[in-house]
Amino acid sequence: MSFSLYQATVPPVQQILGSLSALIDKAAADCEARKIDPATIIGYRLAPDMFAFARQIQVATDNAKGLCARLADVEIPSYPDVETTFDELKARLAKTSDFIGSIPAARFDGAETRKITLKLGGRDVHFTGANYLTGFGLPNFYFHATTAYDILRHAGVAIGKRDFLGAVPVNA
Amino acid sequence: MSFSLYQATVPPVQQILGSLSALIDKAAADCEARKIDPATIIGYRLAPDMFAFARQIQVATDNAKGLCARLADVEIPSYPDVETTFDELKARLAKTSDFIGSIPAARFDGAETRKITLKLGGRDVHFTGANYLTGFGLPNFYFHATTAYDILRHAGVAIGKRDFLGAVPVNA
Repeated sequence: MSFSLYQATVPPVQQILGSLSALIDKAAADCEARKIDPATIIGYRLAPDMFAFARQIQVATDNAKGLCARLADVEIPSYPDVETTFDELKARLAKTSDFIGSIPAARFDGAETRKITLKLGGRDVHFTGANYLTGFGLPNFYFHATTAYDILRHAGVAIGKRDFLGAVPVNA
Repeated sequence: MSFSLYQATVPPVQQILGSLSALIDKAAADCEARKIDPATIIGYRLAPDMFAFARQIQVATDNAKGLCARLADVEIPSYPDVETTFDELKARLAKTSDFIGSIPAARFDGAETRKITLKLGGRDVHFTGANYLTGFGLPNFYFHATTAYDILRHAGVAIGKRDFLGAVPVNA
């Protein structure tokens, strides 16, 4: 057995997309229980110049699809940033998970050396696939996913790290 | 060329340990400029029942050394949780980075199938090395590292995502 780039990418990203969806369910139930308008949570943020909750989810899903599509060398689907409800955000998470799950694992073969070029701060930045995954793609994805969690936590939603980790792939 | 478990573990974890250290420098400078007692930031948190900044750094370093040591099958060094200053937290980050950097890459050979057992919530949980890395070790590490960032950001320290990403491994 060996360790593949696919293994390091699609399953862990799907794990966290799933946990974000479950976190939204908890946030929705909390809004119901505490009589909070869901729009308040959807627009909640940790600092005035930080992205609000909905935007964190949008960027996390952008990170997820961009990361997987670039490594697999398939076209990145474009999702308009129009979500304003918990259900719409959950639909975006599900759509993203379905998309990355639809990419055949074999498309990732050799992706570790694939040349990935991103436009960052107006200039072209080059990565090998392996460096792009481990040093940019995953940290970015976890950054926005965790910040979405932290916003809910800061807003008083009763969640814990186990909710963030979601369906941890344990073995018998 | 292939993609190794070592590559997926040590360099990205060292990248973020380095960026956390640089974030602490920015927090220290900010305390100086805004005349804030550093102890306020070190004890700052996003919710009353969440870990404060110092504890997030301690747990992130615990995650980092535990993750690497378990995969490499070397003993996990024990660090007492005694840090109360920015300099002490930076020393812990540096010590952790030095430790994981000292593990020979060859120790990770075959780690993808190594059986890893953790005590979680009082019971033994089993992982393959690959699942432990991608589904538990890295998400945990990024979770605490990002939350440390979010605490500083929430406290008004002038930092951005680029500071979190740190020394991104770009190629020429």
